Amino acid sequence: MPADMLVSWNDGEAKRAVTDFVAQVTTTGSDAYMPPEDRVAVFDNDGTLWTEKPMPVELGFILQRLAAAAEQDPSLRERQPWKAARDRDYAWLGDVVTRHYHGDDSDVKVLLGGVLQAFAGMTIDTYTAAADAFLRHGQHPTLRAPFTACGYQPMVELLRFLEAHGFATFIASGGDRDFMRVVTQEMYGIPPERVIGSSTALRYTDEIEGGAIVFLAKPEVFDDGPAKPVRIWSRIGRRPIFAAGNSNGDIPMLKFAGGPSRPALRLLLLHDDKTREFAYIAGAERSLELARTLGWTVVSMKNDWKTIFRSAV
Amino acid sequence: MPADMLVSWNDGEAKRAVTDFVAQVTTTGSDAYMPPEDRVAVFDNDGTLWTEKPMPVELGFILQRLAAAAEQDPSLRERQPWKAARDRDYAWLGDVVTRHYHGDDSDVKVLLGGVLQAFAGMTIDTYTAAADAFLRHGQHPTLRAPFTACGYQPMVELLRFLEAHGFATFIASGGDRDFMRVVTQEMYGIPPERVIGSSTALRYTDEIEGGAIVFLAKPEVFDDGPAKPVRIWSRIGRRPIFAAGNSNGDIPMLKFAGGPSRPALRLLLLHDDKTREFAYIAGAERSLELARTLGWTVVSMKNDWKTIFRSAV
Repeated sequence: MPADMLVSWNDGEAKRAVTDFVAQVTTTGSDAYMPPEDRVAVFDNDGTLWTEKPMPVELGFILQRLAAAAEQDPSLRERQPWKAARDRDYAWLGDVVTRHYHGDDSDVKVLLGGVLQAFAGMTIDTYTAAADAFLRHGQHPTLRAPFTACGYQPMVELLRFLEAHGFATFIASGGDRDFMRVVTQEMYGIPPERVIGSSTALRYTDEIEGGAIVFLAKPEVFDDGPAKPVRIWSRIGRRPIFAAGNSNGDIPMLKFAGGPSRPALRLLLLHDDKTREFAYIAGAERSLELARTLGWTVVSMKNDWKTIFRSAV
Repeated sequence: MPADMLVSWNDGEAKRAVTDFVAQVTTTGSDAYMPPEDRVAVFDNDGTLWTEKPMPVELGFILQRLAAAAEQDPSLRERQPWKAARDRDYAWLGDVVTRHYHGDDSDVKVLLGGVLQAFAGMTIDTYTAAADAFLRHGQHPTLRAPFTACGYQPMVELLRFLEAHGFATFIASGGDRDFMRVVTQEMYGIPPERVIGSSTALRYTDEIEGGAIVFLAKPEVFDDGPAKPVRIWSRIGRRPIFAAGNSNGDIPMLKFAGGPSRPALRLLLLHDDKTREFAYIAGAERSLELARTLGWTVVSMKNDWKTIFRSAV
């Protein structure tokens, strides 16, 4: 059992829950034994694999596009979400996510309207190049580090630990699939075909040489809450036995893991490290309550992790 | 170059096109060299990996469900598609597909209405068990062999040949994703997460113990024609450089392979072996025309293949 693959984890309940679970499902003859083809693990991204405060990284990218549009078209400047983008109103934008976790999607719709307008008609190739430039040349607004350095080192170790034990690992996030894909291989060792996320409707056109995929001004799937298990099934075709998340939007995914008869480990990250990252439970209240009731494994970033970020931040 | 992995292929233009292409994209320093992460290959299923005549295998499964429904509910017996199902009217059903390839989807809609009604409310687990029973215990109506023996041996060799050269292989079919997944590992060595296909809308419910995915009476994606490149991108996040199909519905997928700047092999199966399989070009006319115009590789099942089926049929 190469438990020392989890070098950034302090010895404690969370680490023990992970290593015990993996030992049980991989030991032939154990009651909980699962053959390799059934070892599927899914991970949320924002707040689970990388930092999501003061706002999700993707919002920064969107902001940049919206602010640029408002520069070009003054009629947009007094309307949301362009106004917030241009005024760098991080409070308004951060609250969109918190309100969503509390069940109020009115501002999500306002924001989404702007986003759809910003990208409509763009090819996937142009979008990818823009996301790549933002993610590789931009900097986190408060951590003052490249975005690619904002991933959690202990979670990357966990991904490798699971893979070393025959697990297939997937990202299942509310973030935009095509945005994440630009850095998931480099940051987490997860290739684009194992990235599940929200998506905008696309269409194929062969009017562009070689054929191209183009964004429509229409959302396809917002991959959060009950959409997560559906999306996981659609993409993987198997029920995970390991799931990690950090918010109310992850509850259905965590419940779906294991199902009625299989062993499962459900892991919930608690953001309680004000010094090294951020301390908040807004948007995670119900999931933390369920963790207590149902015996999910809560990971305290403060107590369970020796280091937080992959590179020194 | 282990070209002898293609033992069921006769030496000829088609085999040479495949081995030459693979040699070019895998030879470091070659102009056409592609790193392993860009070696993505996509395969249609019906008529490309297994037989689709006298009607697609999945239609047999659907027929069985519709006939059972008509037995239980006499009011369905004079209505399509239940009437055709109960009367074993293979002509009506086979023509649905041919008419679709010709651009007429009116009967597809009639059939789909029945299908959606047949499966609405069913859990994924129940559906999978029913499809499994049909595929493993049923028999092809004219070949008199188990369905799992109706895959093309030369194509299975081609999948392994590509994988041995660093390709990631995927199925991208108009057939139902969840139906195919039941046998793709066993028949083609392709696990469920690499199966892309048509899908019915699903919803998650935690009212069933352990949480369950349930079919809605609503189609999601009919994965054919211009939907194929979109679906391929959505699932893989990379543009294939190898694509194999056999009908007009595969044209956009074949055009999408390679794109404006990359090398690509587009392979089109010609069903011209009346003795060992079936001879038909209905539904493939435009694709064969494009193959001539654009230099796609046409595989004659009669001349290019030593054997057709995986097991003796």
